[in-house]
Amino acid sequence: MAPQYKLRYFNMRAAAEPIRLIFAHANVEYEDIRVAREDWPELKPSMPWGQMPVLEIDGVYLAQSVAICRYLARKYNLIGETELDAAKCDEYVDAIMDMRQDAGKFFREQDAAKKEELKQQIVGETVPKYLEKFNKILTQSDSGFLVGKKLTYADIFVSYIIDGIVLKVLQQPEALANYPVIQKHIDLVNSQNGIREWIAKRPETPF
Amino acid sequence: MAPQYKLRYFNMRAAAEPIRLIFAHANVEYEDIRVAREDWPELKPSMPWGQMPVLEIDGVYLAQSVAICRYLARKYNLIGETELDAAKCDEYVDAIMDMRQDAGKFFREQDAAKKEELKQQIVGETVPKYLEKFNKILTQSDSGFLVGKKLTYADIFVSYIIDGIVLKVLQQPEALANYPVIQKHIDLVNSQNGIREWIAKRPETPF
Repeated sequence: MAPQYKLRYFNMRAAAEPIRLIFAHANVEYEDIRVAREDWPELKPSMPWGQMPVLEIDGVYLAQSVAICRYLARKYNLIGETELDAAKCDEYVDAIMDMRQDAGKFFREQDAAKKEELKQQIVGETVPKYLEKFNKILTQSDSGFLVGKKLTYADIFVSYIIDGIVLKVLQQPEALANYPVIQKHIDLVNSQNGIREWIAKRPETPF
Repeated sequence: MAPQYKLRYFNMRAAAEPIRLIFAHANVEYEDIRVAREDWPELKPSMPWGQMPVLEIDGVYLAQSVAICRYLARKYNLIGETELDAAKCDEYVDAIMDMRQDAGKFFREQDAAKKEELKQQIVGETVPKYLEKFNKILTQSDSGFLVGKKLTYADIFVSYIIDGIVLKVLQQPEALANYPVIQKHIDLVNSQNGIREWIAKRPETPF
């Protein structure tokens, strides 16, 4: 019997959208539960680490967004061909999460002057450093994908973070001007079966 | 032929020691290269993300410490019995890395007053929150291990971080007083084959 999946998260893209994108590409049914802010205090103690997203798999709770992505990726053949491919997927996802973490400092900073300073640092140094690296990896790829010859969860995750964090949340539409290969990669991922349809039909969801 | 492994890191435990512990338990040969600080500027550009640890596997570079641990864990049967076990290992490791990240803010803070404030927050709130959760998981475990019936890389990773960060770096020897099961878990991991010997004989290495 197919597993019964329930994904619990707020009505946001943020840490849950890569999971939704993997489900969309794998064409797998799941319950996409959007928890209202006012219901969260009651639900929070029953979540393993007091956080979401949490994926319920036939009653078992799996937490941590990247662990969830990886679990589904292995199940639905999105980790490349070899164990070293799978490890390179993990490396790329953790690398872009490092960039995401740095951007998070900017998001959380309350002091206006410090926030501006952090933004300059993120936009001027951190983001270009990672874009440069991923641009190089993609330039050297024959397939257009990050790892091996086909789509992996690293493609979905990395392109989602770059598209979401850099272009939309940090509002740096020019950031990819020097890295055309990255824009091509985002377009490639967004045109994959299931993902294309999900993007077209998904509910209006804040970042 | 057995893979040729070269692990590059500074002469520190920090992010590389869980990898060394996995190698020790798996009884696998590797070159444990400790890069001198003065050699780092020259080496840095050749490391995939300008960071270490990096594991070279028959000439291929794998970066990101957790990705390296997971790759070796899968290869040497330290991920439990099922894919859901493997995912729970990943969840636990990412959860303790969240605690590690929070502690990192304290380590990096330069301002003395803010540093003290952050220390109170880490020691008084963050650490107890995670210890409470892991204590509960271990209390409910029949085997004494975090996942399933035998040692996984999550045991090695989590016990290393708690032992290293909480007891040694944050210097909170009393932190485990309310969580005797966690101390028992650390002792269990440190008494495993290979790990016991590594701890006894490893070179004197700062955290």
